[in-house]
Amino acid sequence: MSITKHVAEFTYETRGQDVTPDAALMARLSLLDWIAVGLAGRDEPVARITRDMVLDEGGTAQASLFGSDTRVPARAAALANGAASHALDYDDTHFAHIGHPSVAVFPAALAVAQARGASGADFLHAALLGIEASIRVGVWLGRAHYQTGFHQTATAGAFGAGLAAARLMGLGAGGMAMVLGLLATRASGLKSQFGTMGKPFNAGLAAANGVEAAQLVAKGFVANPDALESPQGFGPTHAGESINSAMQGIGKEWLFETISHKFHACCHGLHAALEAQATLLPIAPDSIRTISVTTHPRWMTVCNQPAPTTGLGAKFSYTTVLPMQILGHDTARLDSYTDAVCADPDVQALRAKVSVTADDSLSETQARVRIDTTDGPHEASFDLDAPMPIATRQDKLRLKAESLLGDSRAGAVWDIIEKGADPDAIGATLHG
Amino acid sequence: MSITKHVAEFTYETRGQDVTPDAALMARLSLLDWIAVGLAGRDEPVARITRDMVLDEGGTAQASLFGSDTRVPARAAALANGAASHALDYDDTHFAHIGHPSVAVFPAALAVAQARGASGADFLHAALLGIEASIRVGVWLGRAHYQTGFHQTATAGAFGAGLAAARLMGLGAGGMAMVLGLLATRASGLKSQFGTMGKPFNAGLAAANGVEAAQLVAKGFVANPDALESPQGFGPTHAGESINSAMQGIGKEWLFETISHKFHACCHGLHAALEAQATLLPIAPDSIRTISVTTHPRWMTVCNQPAPTTGLGAKFSYTTVLPMQILGHDTARLDSYTDAVCADPDVQALRAKVSVTADDSLSETQARVRIDTTDGPHEASFDLDAPMPIATRQDKLRLKAESLLGDSRAGAVWDIIEKGADPDAIGATLHG
Repeated sequence: MSITKHVAEFTYETRGQDVTPDAALMARLSLLDWIAVGLAGRDEPVARITRDMVLDEGGTAQASLFGSDTRVPARAAALANGAASHALDYDDTHFAHIGHPSVAVFPAALAVAQARGASGADFLHAALLGIEASIRVGVWLGRAHYQTGFHQTATAGAFGAGLAAARLMGLGAGGMAMVLGLLATRASGLKSQFGTMGKPFNAGLAAANGVEAAQLVAKGFVANPDALESPQGFGPTHAGESINSAMQGIGKEWLFETISHKFHACCHGLHAALEAQATLLPIAPDSIRTISVTTHPRWMTVCNQPAPTTGLGAKFSYTTVLPMQILGHDTARLDSYTDAVCADPDVQALRAKVSVTADDSLSETQARVRIDTTDGPHEASFDLDAPMPIATRQDKLRLKAESLLGDSRAGAVWDIIEKGADPDAIGATLHG
Repeated sequence: MSITKHVAEFTYETRGQDVTPDAALMARLSLLDWIAVGLAGRDEPVARITRDMVLDEGGTAQASLFGSDTRVPARAAALANGAASHALDYDDTHFAHIGHPSVAVFPAALAVAQARGASGADFLHAALLGIEASIRVGVWLGRAHYQTGFHQTATAGAFGAGLAAARLMGLGAGGMAMVLGLLATRASGLKSQFGTMGKPFNAGLAAANGVEAAQLVAKGFVANPDALESPQGFGPTHAGESINSAMQGIGKEWLFETISHKFHACCHGLHAALEAQATLLPIAPDSIRTISVTTHPRWMTVCNQPAPTTGLGAKFSYTTVLPMQILGHDTARLDSYTDAVCADPDVQALRAKVSVTADDSLSETQARVRIDTTDGPHEASFDLDAPMPIATRQDKLRLKAESLLGDSRAGAVWDIIEKGADPDAIGATLHG
C-alpha cells in the first residue's frame, strides 16, 4: 500500500479505543508541555512578530493565540502558535522522525478544533493521530532528507498537521489523501534557518500549511493525491529515502510513546551528557582534573560551541552546560542560560577541562561522561531512548510546567487537560 | 557578488528612469493580460475555492479579489489572485525562467500597493522589478531545478513576489536580502501537481509567500539572509544549478522584454506547433494521412497526453489541439477545450494520425509540423522566440483581452493602465 493511502486510512479509521493507554497519556503530557513552552515563549521576538502580523490581518474569531486575547482565523493561529511554541526550542522531539512533532501538529489541531467547536476528546485524538502520522512520514523521508538540508519539523510536520485538521473537519480517507497530495506542493522548511527566527517559524509553517490544505480540500480542492511519493512527488524531489517500513505496525504500535521531552532548556544533543553527568554529582569542582564527553558525531557540528559568550550560544555548548550543572545552575530553567554565566570565572575554569570526542558506535541519544578527579575517575553513560516509566515522565513534565508557568497556572492547565481538554478552555489558557 | 545581494540591490536601487521604454510598455501589457486572464478565470473551481477560503477568514480590508467586491488582507488576496489568474493557464511565460512571472508577482504587488496606498507608478515599477528578479532567479535555479520536479512559477516566483512587496514597503537592500533569506524556507511548489488545481494554486503560493515574508521582515524578522545560495540553502537543496551568469546585465538588459504571451488557450508547449501548423492551413481533413510533430524533449512529459477525455486534458495534448485547429476550432477561445471536443469522432480520427517526436536540436520554443496528405507533404517550423514587434504584441494582447472581457471592459481596463495604473482603480476592475 502506498504511504499516502496508509497514513490516510490510519488517520481516518483509528478510533479512540484503538489507542494504547500509554499513547493516550503521552498525548496529554505532550499537550501540557506544548502549552507550557508556548506560554514561556510567547514574547520571544519571533512569536511577537508573527502574532503581530496575523493580528494586523484580523479576521474571523476562530482560534486563540499565545500571548493575546484576540482570536484569529484558524490558519493564522496555527502559523503564530507554531512559531511561538518552538521559539525556545524547549518542546518535544522524536529522534526517528528527526523533528519536533508537537509544535507542528498541536497548533493546527487546536485551531481547527476551536473553529469547529470540536470536543476535547476529538481534539486530543486528532492531534495524537496527526503526530503519529507526522512521525511516520518523518521516518519515511529518512535521514537523507534531513542531511540534505530539510527540516522534518516543517516538512513531515505539515503532513501530520494536515491530517489532524482533516480528521477534525470530518474528511474521509480519500479527502485525507488529497490533503497529503496538496501539502506535497506546499510543505517547506530548511535547516539553514537554524540559529535564526526561521527555525521556530518553520513549525508555524507546518501548522498553517496543514490547516490551509485541509480547509481547501474540504471545499473541493483537487490536487494530485499521489504527490507525496509519486515520481517528482515530495519525497523524490526532497531527497526522501522512501523508507516504506516506516508504516510498519501503524495503528498497533505507537511511535508517540517514544517521543522525548526536554528537561533541560538547551539543545537536545546535550541532554544525554547532562543526564549521565547528573548521576555522578555532586563532585567538588576543585577536585576535577578533566571532564571527557563522548557523543555521537552528528552533535559535533550542532552543539559543540567551544567558548560561547551569549546565553543562546550556551544552549549549544557541552563545554558550558556541563560546568553549569556541576556548579549547581539549574539547566532546566530558561533564565540559567545567560551571557553572564558564559563569563563566569568558575564556568570558564571548568570549561578549560572539558574535552568532547565523537564516537560513531554511540547512537544519537547516547553519551558517556568521565570525570577524572583528585579522588579518581567517575564515569556514567546515558541513553535518552532508555524507557522512562510514564509516571516518572508525568512527574518530570509537571515539574517542568511548574517551573515555566508557576505552580498554580501549571496546575490549572493540567486540570483542564485531565477534565477532557476542551479546546476553548485550552485556548483560554494561551493568553498567559 | 552573491545572487542575493545582486537581486536585492537591483530591486532597491533601480529607478523608474533606468527602465527601457520597451520593458515599461511590456509591464503594462502584461498587467492588462494578467487582469484579463484573471477575470476570465475568476469562477474556475480553484479560484472559487481559494477565494471562498480567504473570504471565510475575512479580516482587514486591504486588497481586492478577482470575483468579489470584498477586500481582504494583502497576504490573502495574493494567494487567491495568484490561483485565479493562473487557473486557465492562459497567462504569460518566460522560457528562460521556465515559469509564469506575472501570476506570481502581480498579485503580490497589487495587494501590497493597495494595502499601502501606493501610486500607480510605484506599483508598476515594483511589479516590473519583481518580475525581472523572478526571471533572473529562475534562470539561476536553472533547468535541473525544473527537471527535478520543482515549479519555477512557484519557487522563483516567490522571490520575485517578495521583492516587489518589499520595494512597495520601503525596505532597504538589507531588508530585501532578508526577505529572500526567509523565502528560502517558505518557497515551494511541485510540477507533480500539473493537471490539477495544484498548478494554478502554486502561483498563489508564490504571491502569498512573497507578501508574508516582506511583512514579517518589515516587523523585524531575522532569517538567514544567505539562505538562497548558502550550503543547504534553497538552491543547493532544490537541485538549483547556481547559474551565476543569470545576473549578467541586470538593470541594463531587461529579460522582461522577452516574456511570451499566450495567444492559444492551452499549454505553452503546444503553441509553436500550432503556429507552425497555422501557416499550412487550410488542409482538407479527409486528405490527411499523417501529422508529424517534432518538438523539444521537455514537452514530451508536459503536454503530450495521447488521448485525453476532458477539456483540461485537451490543453496538454498535441494529438488533440492540432486536429482541433485543422477542424476549425478557435484555439484562442477558452470554450473550445471541452470534454465534447475530445469525444468528437472527427478529432479522434485525426488524433490517430498524429505522431509526436522529440528532437533535442530544437529549442523549447521551436516546433516543426509535417502533414502528409494525398496531395503530398506540407511542412513548416515556428519559433516562439522569434522577435515580435511590440506594436504587434500590443494589438494582439488588446484583441485577446477583448475576446476574454468584451470590448468595452477590455478598453476600460487598458484606459486605467494607460492613465497610470492606480492600484485601487485596478483593484476595482477585478470584481468583474
